[in-house]
Amino acid sequence: MGTTLFVCTTCKAGQPVPEGSTPPGAQLHAALTAETAPEGVRIVGVECLSACNTGCAVSLTKPGAWSYVYGRLTLDDVPAILEGAGKYADSPDGIVPWRDRPTVFRKQSIARIPPLPPLEEAAE
Amino acid sequence: MGTTLFVCTTCKAGQPVPEGSTPPGAQLHAALTAETAPEGVRIVGVECLSACNTGCAVSLTKPGAWSYVYGRLTLDDVPAILEGAGKYADSPDGIVPWRDRPTVFRKQSIARIPPLPPLEEAAE
Repeated sequence: MGTTLFVCTTCKAGQPVPEGSTPPGAQLHAALTAETAPEGVRIVGVECLSACNTGCAVSLTKPGAWSYVYGRLTLDDVPAILEGAGKYADSPDGIVPWRDRPTVFRKQSIARIPPLPPLEEAAE
Repeated sequence: MGTTLFVCTTCKAGQPVPEGSTPPGAQLHAALTAETAPEGVRIVGVECLSACNTGCAVSLTKPGAWSYVYGRLTLDDVPAILEGAGKYADSPDGIVPWRDRPTVFRKQSIARIPPLPPLEEAAE
């Protein structure tokens, strides 16, 4: 199954957002979807990744793999986000070798979550 | 399927950890597993949740539900973490009503990741 790149569309990136204007998160989502997504990657907007102190935020996830959350992203990071998403999609377990990760993914990881362990492993 | 509470065992909580001493994350893992886990919750230690700036960190996840990462946790938070994990396990989608969440879960969310969307929704 494929990779999903979730993009928080409500992120305010620590700035006041005047009523009626587009939040930075929605701008980032629009900029990402305006580009061609890497093969095997779906880009999905989502309201609030609960990373409000570290927005704009995105998350990469796929079944059976580690999931990642990245933060403090701007429109300048769009090419790097797409590059990193493509490499994530190509990896078997979501773990891209450190040297191959875009700088923004090396430096702006907020958290990662392991794949669900098989029951017997969890019982150890 | 059940809920997994991942506990980062390598978290240093921003402190220097002298060689040979137990990292705060491993202490938190030991304290959590010393208690009776809430029904339906497995507690699994994991090396590095990549939330190093906001440790100690834990993650709650289950299939088909939102996953959460919480940070800046201490041994004092063990009862609240277990309470929150139990409520998460009881929720259908991982979203516990705000008023029912332990304070530490209200105030120390690092990020959350949605469940994987069905293909047709992602294609919109």
